[in-house]
Amino acid sequence: MSDLLHFEDFSVGESRDLGTYAVTAEEIKSFAREFDPQFFHLDDDRAKASVLGGLSASGWHTCGIVMRLMVDGYLGRTAGMGSPGLDEVRWLKPVYAGETLLGRMTVLAKRKSKSRPEMGLVTMKWEARSATGETKIDMTGVNLIKVRQP
Amino acid sequence: MSDLLHFEDFSVGESRDLGTYAVTAEEIKSFAREFDPQFFHLDDDRAKASVLGGLSASGWHTCGIVMRLMVDGYLGRTAGMGSPGLDEVRWLKPVYAGETLLGRMTVLAKRKSKSRPEMGLVTMKWEARSATGETKIDMTGVNLIKVRQP
Repeated sequence: MSDLLHFEDFSVGESRDLGTYAVTAEEIKSFAREFDPQFFHLDDDRAKASVLGGLSASGWHTCGIVMRLMVDGYLGRTAGMGSPGLDEVRWLKPVYAGETLLGRMTVLAKRKSKSRPEMGLVTMKWEARSATGETKIDMTGVNLIKVRQP
Repeated sequence: MSDLLHFEDFSVGESRDLGTYAVTAEEIKSFAREFDPQFFHLDDDRAKASVLGGLSASGWHTCGIVMRLMVDGYLGRTAGMGSPGLDEVRWLKPVYAGETLLGRMTVLAKRKSKSRPEMGLVTMKWEARSATGETKIDMTGVNLIKVRQP
């Protein structure tokens, strides 16, 4: 367990790049068929003719992609204890088929749980940008992370 | 278009049941492999031995399920214009394999856009409960919905 990141290893103000994720049309449609069957995410022609101008990912799909970037970027090697939730999600720009997203996390705040001293609450901001630097999504929420020395 | 629900058809305070969704172990693992590969969602034995006591869905998977209930429950027959985001997501209780979720939406507030009078902003609360009435997830956010008579 000692090689896992713990509460003590996260510092307020630090940022980490979380790597990249290429979004395909097939994946956009496959996610949408299961969870968000609206035409923006399923029908190339109708999406192209809409205000969005092209097939775009479900906002929930974008959230899932950011989660995957989080797991690959740090959470997969962190002594994580889950999450109670999110304080905000902003779907700022559509994510189009063929785009590559770059993830980033920033630690906004941290504190130990009062009732469970072995558990830390780390408030983070997670963002994903396009290759041209446009921010697509912006979320804040809490990761519960084990304290190494309670 | 006239048979679609518009901004005028949603009233502050109203609630609608959104139907049910049965969550399977296969689906929990399949979602997790793609978006949230942590052992709570992938490995029956380790999940059973953990504080969660059994295989549970990724919080993002639960969000996707609620979205599907929303689309089937009203959004699929609504003149929707997307969503700018969420104000809060609370993952209150784990969603275990084999559980059936019941969705519900409540309209908290509504207003027309100042800059785009053809667009309405409807703030909603979405919840999913277990068959025994335990609230699993609770979210608030905005649906953008076309105004019938701007």
